[in-house]
Amino acid sequence: MLVKLKRFDSDYGFEATNEAGKSLTLDAGPAIGGHGQGFSPMQAVLAAIGGCSGIDMISILKKQKQEITDFEMTVDGTREQGAVPSPFTAIHIVYHVKGNVDKEKAQRAADLSIEKYCSVSKMLEKSAKITYEVKVN
Amino acid sequence: MLVKLKRFDSDYGFEATNEAGKSLTLDAGPAIGGHGQGFSPMQAVLAAIGGCSGIDMISILKKQKQEITDFEMTVDGTREQGAVPSPFTAIHIVYHVKGNVDKEKAQRAADLSIEKYCSVSKMLEKSAKITYEVKVN
Repeated sequence: MLVKLKRFDSDYGFEATNEAGKSLTLDAGPAIGGHGQGFSPMQAVLAAIGGCSGIDMISILKKQKQEITDFEMTVDGTREQGAVPSPFTAIHIVYHVKGNVDKEKAQRAADLSIEKYCSVSKMLEKSAKITYEVKVN
Repeated sequence: MLVKLKRFDSDYGFEATNEAGKSLTLDAGPAIGGHGQGFSPMQAVLAAIGGCSGIDMISILKKQKQEITDFEMTVDGTREQGAVPSPFTAIHIVYHVKGNVDKEKAQRAADLSIEKYCSVSKMLEKSAKITYEVKVN
């Protein structure tokens, strides 16, 4: 799996491109001389664990014929302040599911994702305590 | 640090938004019922380690008054095929640096990033063997 990155300004702006030609923008924040034109790398990590687990959740609930009308998440990452490097020490995910969805099935789907399926979570759990909660309707 | 995700189709498409309102698109690939409208979560992880280390490299070389005219990277991730979950087992980064840049300084900057500074790398190295090479001009 190959991703390419190309700096597009004279500071820290990067366009990343995948093998299908889709792109996303990364940048550092003003605190270190960037311009915040996109996600910071650590924000991209939070997006990745959210997307990974969200895909699992939807996949499991689809197989169980649950009718999801709206699906949102928040992913909150905590880092050790002032440390270098400062990996995440904790990540908290909240799943907001709307529709004709059984609460217990949704909770079980989240459990399966974080405990068994999600490859991003499996990598990050070696550094960060990962917690989550499921809210249905 | 908070990232929000919202599903935007009836399958696995997610728009992720950071606290500054910048967004990126994630999706699953066709193999599991997605539409490849953006980066997969695992591709986003590769973008994150690339951006993290690229920002370090540029920051260090700027402090050393090296004149970078072009900076590109490839990030290649290897996963265990067919396993669930399938975290990265290896990640190889190639830095392509152009400009009036001392080769040894660039190599040392990459060493410092991967060995000392990059928070994304520090998390992923617990799962994956991370290797890298630096090409100048």
